[in-house]
Amino acid sequence: MTPAPIASAALDDLASDLALLREDLDAVEAELQSGAASNVAAITDIGQHLRSSGGKRIRALLVLFAARLADCPQPARVRLGAIVEMIHAATLIHDDILDNAPTRRGRPSANAVWGNSRCVLAGDWLYMQAFRLALSLRNFDILDALIALTQDMVEGELLQLEMQGSVVTAAQHLDLIERKTARLFQVASQLGAMAAGQPAAIVAALGRFGRHLGLAFQMVDDLLDFTAAEAVLGKPVGGDLRDGKMTLPAIYAHAAADAADRAALERALAGESIPWPEVYSIVECTGALERARRESREQADLALAAIHELPPSPWQAALARLPAFVIERDR
Amino acid sequence: MTPAPIASAALDDLASDLALLREDLDAVEAELQSGAASNVAAITDIGQHLRSSGGKRIRALLVLFAARLADCPQPARVRLGAIVEMIHAATLIHDDILDNAPTRRGRPSANAVWGNSRCVLAGDWLYMQAFRLALSLRNFDILDALIALTQDMVEGELLQLEMQGSVVTAAQHLDLIERKTARLFQVASQLGAMAAGQPAAIVAALGRFGRHLGLAFQMVDDLLDFTAAEAVLGKPVGGDLRDGKMTLPAIYAHAAADAADRAALERALAGESIPWPEVYSIVECTGALERARRESREQADLALAAIHELPPSPWQAALARLPAFVIERDR
Repeated sequence: MTPAPIASAALDDLASDLALLREDLDAVEAELQSGAASNVAAITDIGQHLRSSGGKRIRALLVLFAARLADCPQPARVRLGAIVEMIHAATLIHDDILDNAPTRRGRPSANAVWGNSRCVLAGDWLYMQAFRLALSLRNFDILDALIALTQDMVEGELLQLEMQGSVVTAAQHLDLIERKTARLFQVASQLGAMAAGQPAAIVAALGRFGRHLGLAFQMVDDLLDFTAAEAVLGKPVGGDLRDGKMTLPAIYAHAAADAADRAALERALAGESIPWPEVYSIVECTGALERARRESREQADLALAAIHELPPSPWQAALARLPAFVIERDR
Repeated sequence: MTPAPIASAALDDLASDLALLREDLDAVEAELQSGAASNVAAITDIGQHLRSSGGKRIRALLVLFAARLADCPQPARVRLGAIVEMIHAATLIHDDILDNAPTRRGRPSANAVWGNSRCVLAGDWLYMQAFRLALSLRNFDILDALIALTQDMVEGELLQLEMQGSVVTAAQHLDLIERKTARLFQVASQLGAMAAGQPAAIVAALGRFGRHLGLAFQMVDDLLDFTAAEAVLGKPVGGDLRDGKMTLPAIYAHAAADAADRAALERALAGESIPWPEVYSIVECTGALERARRESREQADLALAAIHELPPSPWQAALARLPAFVIERDR
């Protein structure tokens, strides 16, 4: 199946969509700043470090676009954007402890600066702060969704640990990115509609949109780990495989390669230092990169189909441009 | 001020009080077992490890006694008992990461068995599971109390990290144990009354009771680190000071000691290996142990006074026997 072509002009439109959200996005930043201030210095410091590292805030954007579509008023929609970014930040802090990552986005990671102990606690604190903000909305559906989401993400991280260094199937990997990324995008797309008391069908369509967008987003992330320029990506390419993580390009290459190439991939996965051009050439020549790229486009198309179930509006049109942005980004 | 004498016969009465709660306590264990089962093996394993380590379940007891006094029905009171034990267990798992503790209660700690990564995530998962159970009660007051409590506890742990290795004042230490221990006891005592919709005055009196009981409990814990038999305590005595933590006995001894003894305490705090008899003799001879013991008894008396503000009932009488149990325990 040939994926629908995605016009790169969509990226220009996105810039004007973002202008419509400027005020909301600034308010989210302000809420993140005040919300992460504590009388315990380490919490405020780690929060400041994370904010200044220039996260893409794509999750807050998603919350805001979808909340606008669902007629979710202020201050609820900004609060929801901040909550989702806080939960995401908390998972990143705890994730750094897991990976013992020396850098994140080209800067020292929080645990390299503050140590594991403080980072465990700062992550805990941020989770609680997100739930505290969520509690202020007095909406049980939202709380149910956020708690289930967080638990899914944590289970995803644990599954990833269990699978580390092993050859996995595409199905296992999809289950993983479903939990690790897609659920957060799904819930982020639904929160505003939940707060605004929209009918279940609207909430469900937004959820499908977010889920497929999240799958596309993670698939592109995994592709960029193979194809991006290191300076643009802000971290060394090939890191996933070196960390013992098989993503779609490696999974498809492993399935399609001959015995020698398959063995080389397995040695790279086991932590052996294989020259990067050799690894890259295997995933390229087996057509694995193209296959993974196609799958990410299919997910983007499914997201587009879900958003077109909703009544046309300027916000629906803006959401419909997000899949192209996700697919065409280079970092 | 001379503390009121506490009859050791209270401990015999406690045994019969516990018999009244046997069914509830069994139900809490069952809820902990089913509630900590996950489709991710590491979570179930770590939960099982924690449960089999023979925790005292004093927090669940407190929830149940206070919930019975407040006419909180089943299944809410058992659920609340399980929630509090889960939150406590989650803090212990993350606490072990901080301390890099090789053992807990005489057995290998979870992080020694499963590694930091899995323990960070298992602790996160348990927090979320506790909140998920709490959400099922559909009571915003309870959720507010649990989230604020958890955040306070995390701040307490962070403050403890900041203070590690430093000479601290009694006021700083009391602020710490307020957050680390007393808040959980306070909220544990209030949850049943919140679930049953009791008037604010009842909730407040139960909170005061729990808070003072928690302070007494932690003070006794800190004393036992100096006075207990190692085999009974299940961990090496003197561990707090070796870990750079000053508790009341060391704080009072440091204030009362001569320059040489003060310097010895500071060296022990800084991680130097000082013979234990020397340290013990300083806290004993300065009267610091007796002073700390007196303070713990005063907190127990304040707990007793708070519980006597409530109307007499068999459950009030049972709660009134807890302070003696806390004071007289040897582990």
